[in-house]
Amino acid sequence: MFEFRFRTSRAAEARDITNDVAGFVKGKEGGLVHIYTPHTTCGIMINENADPDVARDIIEGFDRIAPEAYPYWHKEGNSHAHIKAVMVGCSVTVPISKGRMLLGTWQGIFLMEFDGPRERKVTVTIV
Amino acid sequence: MFEFRFRTSRAAEARDITNDVAGFVKGKEGGLVHIYTPHTTCGIMINENADPDVARDIIEGFDRIAPEAYPYWHKEGNSHAHIKAVMVGCSVTVPISKGRMLLGTWQGIFLMEFDGPRERKVTVTIV
Amino acid sequence: MFEFRFRTSRAAEARDITNDVAGFVKGKEGGLVHIYTPHTTCGIMINENADPDVARDIIEGFDRIAPEAYPYWHKEGNSHAHIKAVMVGCSVTVPISKGRMLLGTWQGIFLMEFDGPRERKVTVTIV
Repeated sequence: MFEFRFRTSRAAEARDITNDVAGFVKGKEGGLVHIYTPHTTCGIMINENADPDVARDIIEGFDRIAPEAYPYWHKEGNSHAHIKAVMVGCSVTVPISKGRMLLGTWQGIFLMEFDGPRERKVTVTIV
Repeated sequence: MFEFRFRTSRAAEARDITNDVAGFVKGKEGGLVHIYTPHTTCGIMINENADPDVARDIIEGFDRIAPEAYPYWHKEGNSHAHIKAVMVGCSVTVPISKGRMLLGTWQGIFLMEFDGPRERKVTVTIV
Repeated sequence: MFEFRFRTSRAAEARDITNDVAGFVKGKEGGLVHIYTPHTTCGIMINENADPDVARDIIEGFDRIAPEAYPYWHKEGNSHAHIKAVMVGCSVTVPISKGRMLLGTWQGIFLMEFDGPRERKVTVTIV
């Protein structure tokens, strides 16, 4: 098990953590790698990391689905971020073979920040 | 592996099952715990369990995304609940260390009922 | 670990792959089975496979949430499919006991195509 931390720099941000996870997986034989974030207003997503406009469209699409400006019950002003975090989910699991994740050609792993900037933790576990 | 059952009491409800899962995990050494529900109109969510208004905002936000009143094809009147269950997902996986889940400070595990009240099962597995 | 491939036949499609996965799981003792797709415009979903109108309502519901026609930044015309893939997720994990998945009565496993027709891969891993 391995934990890494970093600071996001914007209110909403798709932070590519593929290389961080790949570095930990390197040399491990096989099975699955689980990537988890212990927060409630960010999530872990697998999607395209070739054209950055894809993540931008996803962030803006989620904004239309769960807008920040709405008379929510929760008074901290970040209910939109909680809803987005639930839609993305707080973990992903990827198969490993011979020390490498079996990600597809276009797949990258992202920390999806919806209520930044903040310090965020990610826990990586191999089974 | 362990299964527990309970009865939800409303049409839509966020039922906090963190303690049920924690009790099963206690004493187990490490790895991951998988929490699964074998139904198609409820889901398993990890999100804030401090202020109950967060879960209320999530339930109401999902209602705006997938409203109950719509001319769906499926004639049982619960297609909105199927859509919500897919958005939440029917399982979550959490890292374990020394008999405790590595949940964040604000994280709890919820059975999200979208078509209640019903009797629901949850299956917990450690790997 | 096992990989299978198939070709989807429409732009959007819920392809039931329950039997493909069940065939691989047969005879395996226990634990969890992980079903993963290495693409960014399709996903893996667990939901009802009795009435096909449920999957149809899910696909159409997702179309209303993330419409194809919108001035997205990404210029390939499939940003709606990326958003839907993130909402569904690219993997599911199901408990196994005595060579059988512990799916509920109404649950099936689907490859959700959002940008077809295409050739798609699915990777199945047991832990």
